[in-house]
Amino acid sequence: MAELEFIDRYREDFLARLEAHRTLGEPKNLYEPIAYILGLGGKRLRPVLSLMGCELFGGRASEAMGVALAIEAFHNFSLVHDDIMDRAPLRRGKATVHEKWDVNTGILSGDALLILAYRFLEDYPPELYKELTSLFSQTALEVCQGQQYDMDFGGRQQVSIPQYLKMIEYKTAVLLAAALKMGALVGGAGKGDAEALYHFGLNLGIAFQIQDDYLDLFGDPDTFGKQLGGDVLENKKTFLYLKALELAWDPDREQLLGLYSTEPKDGRAKIETVRSIFEACGSVRATKAEMDRYAEKAFESLDQMELSEGAKSQLRRFGEYLIQREL
Amino acid sequence: MAELEFIDRYREDFLARLEAHRTLGEPKNLYEPIAYILGLGGKRLRPVLSLMGCELFGGRASEAMGVALAIEAFHNFSLVHDDIMDRAPLRRGKATVHEKWDVNTGILSGDALLILAYRFLEDYPPELYKELTSLFSQTALEVCQGQQYDMDFGGRQQVSIPQYLKMIEYKTAVLLAAALKMGALVGGAGKGDAEALYHFGLNLGIAFQIQDDYLDLFGDPDTFGKQLGGDVLENKKTFLYLKALELAWDPDREQLLGLYSTEPKDGRAKIETVRSIFEACGSVRATKAEMDRYAEKAFESLDQMELSEGAKSQLRRFGEYLIQREL
Repeated sequence: MAELEFIDRYREDFLARLEAHRTLGEPKNLYEPIAYILGLGGKRLRPVLSLMGCELFGGRASEAMGVALAIEAFHNFSLVHDDIMDRAPLRRGKATVHEKWDVNTGILSGDALLILAYRFLEDYPPELYKELTSLFSQTALEVCQGQQYDMDFGGRQQVSIPQYLKMIEYKTAVLLAAALKMGALVGGAGKGDAEALYHFGLNLGIAFQIQDDYLDLFGDPDTFGKQLGGDVLENKKTFLYLKALELAWDPDREQLLGLYSTEPKDGRAKIETVRSIFEACGSVRATKAEMDRYAEKAFESLDQMELSEGAKSQLRRFGEYLIQREL
Repeated sequence: MAELEFIDRYREDFLARLEAHRTLGEPKNLYEPIAYILGLGGKRLRPVLSLMGCELFGGRASEAMGVALAIEAFHNFSLVHDDIMDRAPLRRGKATVHEKWDVNTGILSGDALLILAYRFLEDYPPELYKELTSLFSQTALEVCQGQQYDMDFGGRQQVSIPQYLKMIEYKTAVLLAAALKMGALVGGAGKGDAEALYHFGLNLGIAFQIQDDYLDLFGDPDTFGKQLGGDVLENKKTFLYLKALELAWDPDREQLLGLYSTEPKDGRAKIETVRSIFEACGSVRATKAEMDRYAEKAFESLDQMELSEGAKSQLRRFGEYLIQREL
């Protein structure tokens, strides 16, 4: 599906504003890595959500720039620190901060970026500031919890599907939800609408992350952006994998467990075998169904909002753009 | 000098409140390290400053607990991350978080602690919350800048005394100043008084850090808490060292530069030589004078406050307790 025009417009507005904030402060060794990671690109999905959330409820996108910057700064803070923890050499095809500089620089500039995120919210008057900042802190803490669950799962044999869903809710979905809700609050949304929008974002975010698991094996290599099968090579416990452990019978199940305890040099055969087990046992079908279920749940939240049909249709189109349901 | 009674009382009140907040959340691997570092002890100087700042301006200490917890959480966040950056194995005689767990746990639980610090400020109503949180964020960012300057200095030949003073102002003094000022704001202090108290804390903090440099070589081994001469063994560019480079003549100056490029296994001879160069060239005298100058500057701020003589005398006694001027 082609990108939606309004998304492009929000993204461009945001990038113009971000550029104005990328001027360097002192000490350089603290602020250069921040300018670097903020300039690395990406879809800028989260700030777009904030600007959209604001306009849907009658605000102007420019009023939500503080929120958009805070959300994007926080997201980049989490990327810098997660990349250290995951020992990732590359981010969006470029060297990660701790690779280009060093681990200490990654830790400290990440810390500063988290604090800068809070500073961007100082644009707002006290009542709104407190509402935004409280939601922001709650979300930030949940993202840390999600990252901890993710790290815990790596070293564990048994991870249940509900535990996995909780992990992706915290690690990914709450920030999308908060980005929308914070934008909506700036735009003047009432409590009920803001909450419904939060749940729209939350469920869409979970669907989005399950889709990401799916695309790791079944995505279009030209548009996916990461190496296909990367999760399999890393023995990552994704939705596809956990579901397959539920559904597959021996000897497939045993083979899967065996494959996920190896790290072969040439992983192509492993990827192929895993892919065909996932398909044969029904995990692929179940994963798509779960993704659809969360997308549906997201769209149901729209019915609870007091919004024009035009506005609801915009949210629906955004949701469909994010969850490319033709898969 | 004996500890002041009111300090003990504030510390005990704070510890009781802190204990109530040390209940563990999930995931355990995130919250156990937080409970561990918060329980390691220390003088709890910063929260004491907040409680005192509040009562001096007519509030009750209990009202400033949110501020005290935020400041202490932030301080411990910075200890956890600094210990990773410095590769420090011990903190207050116990294993540092990244030693007891691992570096990833240190990074992530430190992040969570920084966010928790913000959450503690949610006790306050919106206007006050925004005032406190803004000052807190500004301070937190300055502490990061101070840590970056400190790391930058390690790899540099030339550090000027003004650069060094800026570094300790950011790394140490601003948090003491903010702890006092935030407490005072909760207590109802006016803008002018709060600002004067900030400068009292700032200059006292600088004096305190210069004293720390001095005590590294000339402290009482029974009460200093760290190994005497530790800074010398690490070739740390302290006030004593930088001043000695200004004051010493060759061949002492050359010898000092030479000694600071070595890391001998048995460092006792190095410590002795450095100590006598610092004394002979006048650096020790100059360091004490600088410490006194900042302490005096701190005490001058008291004159600008609309406070009872009793309250001013309490601040003065606190300052004198901190800067043990009999040295």
